[in-house]
Formats: sequence, C-alpha cells, structure tokens
Amino acid sequence: MVAVAPADSRRASRSSIGRAFTLLNAFGPDHSRLTLTELARRADLPLTTAHRLAGELVACGALERDDGGRYRIGLRLWELASLAPRGLGLRELALPFLEDLYEVTRENAQLAVRDGVEVVFVERITGRHAVPVRTRVGGRWAMHCTGVGLVLLAYAPTDVQEQVLGQPLERYTERTVTAADELRRTLASVRQRGYAVSDRQVTMDSLSVAAPIRGADGTVVAAISLVVHSDGAQPVALAPAVQAAARGVSRALR
Amino acid sequence: MVAVAPADSRRASRSSIGRAFTLLNAFGPDHSRLTLTELARRADLPLTTAHRLAGELVACGALERDDGGRYRIGLRLWELASLAPRGLGLRELALPFLEDLYEVTRENAQLAVRDGVEVVFVERITGRHAVPVRTRVGGRWAMHCTGVGLVLLAYAPTDVQEQVLGQPLERYTERTVTAADELRRTLASVRQRGYAVSDRQVTMDSLSVAAPIRGADGTVVAAISLVVHSDGAQPVALAPAVQAAARGVSRALR
Repeated sequence: MVAVAPADSRRASRSSIGRAFTLLNAFGPDHSRLTLTELARRADLPLTTAHRLAGELVACGALERDDGGRYRIGLRLWELASLAPRGLGLRELALPFLEDLYEVTRENAQLAVRDGVEVVFVERITGRHAVPVRTRVGGRWAMHCTGVGLVLLAYAPTDVQEQVLGQPLERYTERTVTAADELRRTLASVRQRGYAVSDRQVTMDSLSVAAPIRGADGTVVAAISLVVHSDGAQPVALAPAVQAAARGVSRALR
Repeated sequence: MVAVAPADSRRASRSSIGRAFTLLNAFGPDHSRLTLTELARRADLPLTTAHRLAGELVACGALERDDGGRYRIGLRLWELASLAPRGLGLRELALPFLEDLYEVTRENAQLAVRDGVEVVFVERITGRHAVPVRTRVGGRWAMHCTGVGLVLLAYAPTDVQEQVLGQPLERYTERTVTAADELRRTLASVRQRGYAVSDRQVTMDSLSVAAPIRGADGTVVAAISLVVHSDGAQPVALAPAVQAAARGVSRALR
C-alpha cells in the first residue's frame, strides 16, 4: 500500500502550485530525504524546473535542506498541517480516549479517517510489548481488511462502498475477506452491532476491534480501534471499551 | 505567542507558490476554518486571487471545504507533513521514550525542536490529571522561559543566542527570567549540568525539566521534557529520567 496523491492533484499539474505539489508528492515513507536529481526524477519534472520550484518551497519553509544538501519536508508544512481538523485537530480531541484504551490493554490504540477508498491513520499509541502492527501515522491502508476500515466502509456513502466492492480485494493473510458478497454481509453486521472485528485479516497474530466516531450531524467521520494479539483475544469483551471511547470522542467533537 | 511564518516566506510572496503559502498561513489555531472572505482578508489578497488560489489548493488536497463551504487545511497536507523528519519522523522515534516518561509521572512529556528563535512543539503526551500546560502540538513558544527552550537555546549557534538575548524577554509569571545576564548564566548552567529546569516561569503551577536530543553528528537537534505540578516537584530527581529518555531518542536517531 503506497501513499498516492488524490486524482485531482494530477489534473492541477499544469499550474505552478500544482507542480509544487507534484514535487512535494515525490516524498514518501521510504523517500523522506531526496537529492535534487531524485526529486526531479520522482516528480517527472525537468531538473531546472525542479530546482526552481524546490527553491521557492524552501523559501516558504515547505521544504528544508539537510547538511548534505538533500531536501526534506519542512517543519513549517508540519506546523500548518497541525491545523488540519481531520488530522491533528481530531487527534488532539481523541488523544485522551486513545490513552484510556491503551491503559486498558497496553497494546495498540488507533485513530483513522477515510480518504476516498482508503483509510489514513491519524494516530497510534502503542506499547513496547504490543503486537507489531503494519500501520504508520500518516500512512494509508485498504478498508476491507482493517478494523477501522470496515467501520468507515460500513458507514460510507453507497458509491464508495460499491467502488470498493467492485474492485479486486487484496489478500494479506489466509483470513482476509476477499469475496464481495462476504464483505457485504460483514458491513451489514458492523452497522447492526455498531463495531467491527478484523480477525487476523492483516497479520496472522493480530486482531482489531473498531467503532465509529460521529460528527455533530451524526455522520461517521472517523474510527477508533484496539489492535491486540489475536491469541486469546475476546472481541466481545473489548468492544464495549472501544465503543465507549468512540462515543467519548464523538461527544468531544460536538 | 502567535504562529508566524518564517521571514523568508514573505520574500517569496511575489510568486504564485509564495502567494499560495500566504493563503495557507492565514490559518491558525483560532482560525482553523475560514470563509473565502476571511481567507482573503487575513492573507491580504484580492478576493478573486484568493478564490483562484484556494481552488488550486483544494485540487491538490492542501485545502478542503467543509459542509458549510468554509475552507480548512486538508488531510493531504497532513499526510505530506507526516514525512517531515523534524516533525512526525522525529516524533515516531521519540514516542516510546515519551511514553516511558509519561508512565513514570502521569503528567506531561513533551518533544520540541527549534525554529529560528522559537521552539515548536512536536509532541505532547498528557495525563488526565496532569498539570494544565499552555503548549499545543504544532504550536510555537518563546525559548527563554520553557524547559525545552532553555535546552535548545543553550546549545544553539551563538548568533541565535545573541538574537534572543538582545531582544526584550517577555514575562509570563513573576518567576520568568527576563534579564539577559541572568539568562546567560542559566544557559551556562544548562550546558554544564546537561539539563534545564524551568521553575514556574511559564505558569505558577508548573515546573519542567528538559534534556537535549543529539543527532548523528552530536549536535543538539531537539529537546524532551517533563512538565509536572511545581508543588513538591524535585527537579534533581526527575532529571535522570529525562536525560535517559533524551539519550534513548539520540541513539534511535543514529
């Protein structure tokens, strides 16, 4: 699962702002520091254009240069991004509730929102001895296999659900649900119970229980989950804690 | 203390990228959702220009519009920013150590970096019953009064120190050090002891102990702190835990 820019960003690529974001989109989890040559190649821009745009982005603080001259995403961009209501804004409100969940289990408490047909992880609190998870704050994942993804998909607009159900569903483990019909039934059961369980669908040693966070108008805007060792985990026992935390965040959002 | 853009961003304001960042800089902690009119006024741009730039930024995902049509910082910007080595990158490495500090005290564990003559808070883990702190993740503060600020100033280049010492030092409480000579002595003592103590210099009920985080080349790149109730706090007892955490993060950075 790689971070991809929204389709719209490509449409805007003719403008200088659009090209600046093409340049910024060249950075990724495995490419957090880039030379000018790497930057130009990954953004598919001529070296001179990349050089000029990078210079302007450095002047704005959106990019920084390290001691070796390589470019990296700048602190100023991170400061601006801390104002994103669906990013750090939501995260600040949710943090005390994530901490409560973490205290209960010493495993992983996660917060995610939907972007298109994927989930974006906004926060994760993890214990030292917690089951290893494959997610990263700021990272994207598929919806059909993760606990938060199943919640966000269950309450997503119909066209989003149909888009996900209409495309091949990637298999991560032997337990991943990849049949559209079975996924449909799962989503119905999530809506009925008010929480989702992803049992060894992402890795064979983990299980997650997730619940919806609702905005002021009642629509589902985010999801919160606990990811624990699958060995001996009791979803039915974990669900009330996760649902209570989700209700707490929902209340804080009003 | 308000979030201000680096001086360089103003110089670039003629270009379209520069103006786009002028528009983004209109957002702030108390202005996270803005109408087009507010956006134009705060960015000091004509309405038509603001409208065009905002449209391009929405197309890139840097801005989003809420149900009421107001603009807000977009999730895509936050995703990009999660790649900033001095933002979430550092934060990911430091998080387990911050959690350890939090476990010890159930108060506030903080992580900050220097930007110019101010500190920017990158992370804060706080307990429900912790002493209230005035900082915000993504927020800026003065260096002369905060624990992390004193550490970052003590190890900053001489020109940065002289710049801070040469300007009026704002008083937050009756204990805030505002005399340049006294601050100079404080900084010398921070370098000698290897940690800083801010005793009721920000609020009268809090005390912080901070220690430096060093990069691979040995230079100080960040600071970590504990902020506790000043009542009965023993900085000498807290310092080893904070220093050990700082050394742990420094090791993780290599």
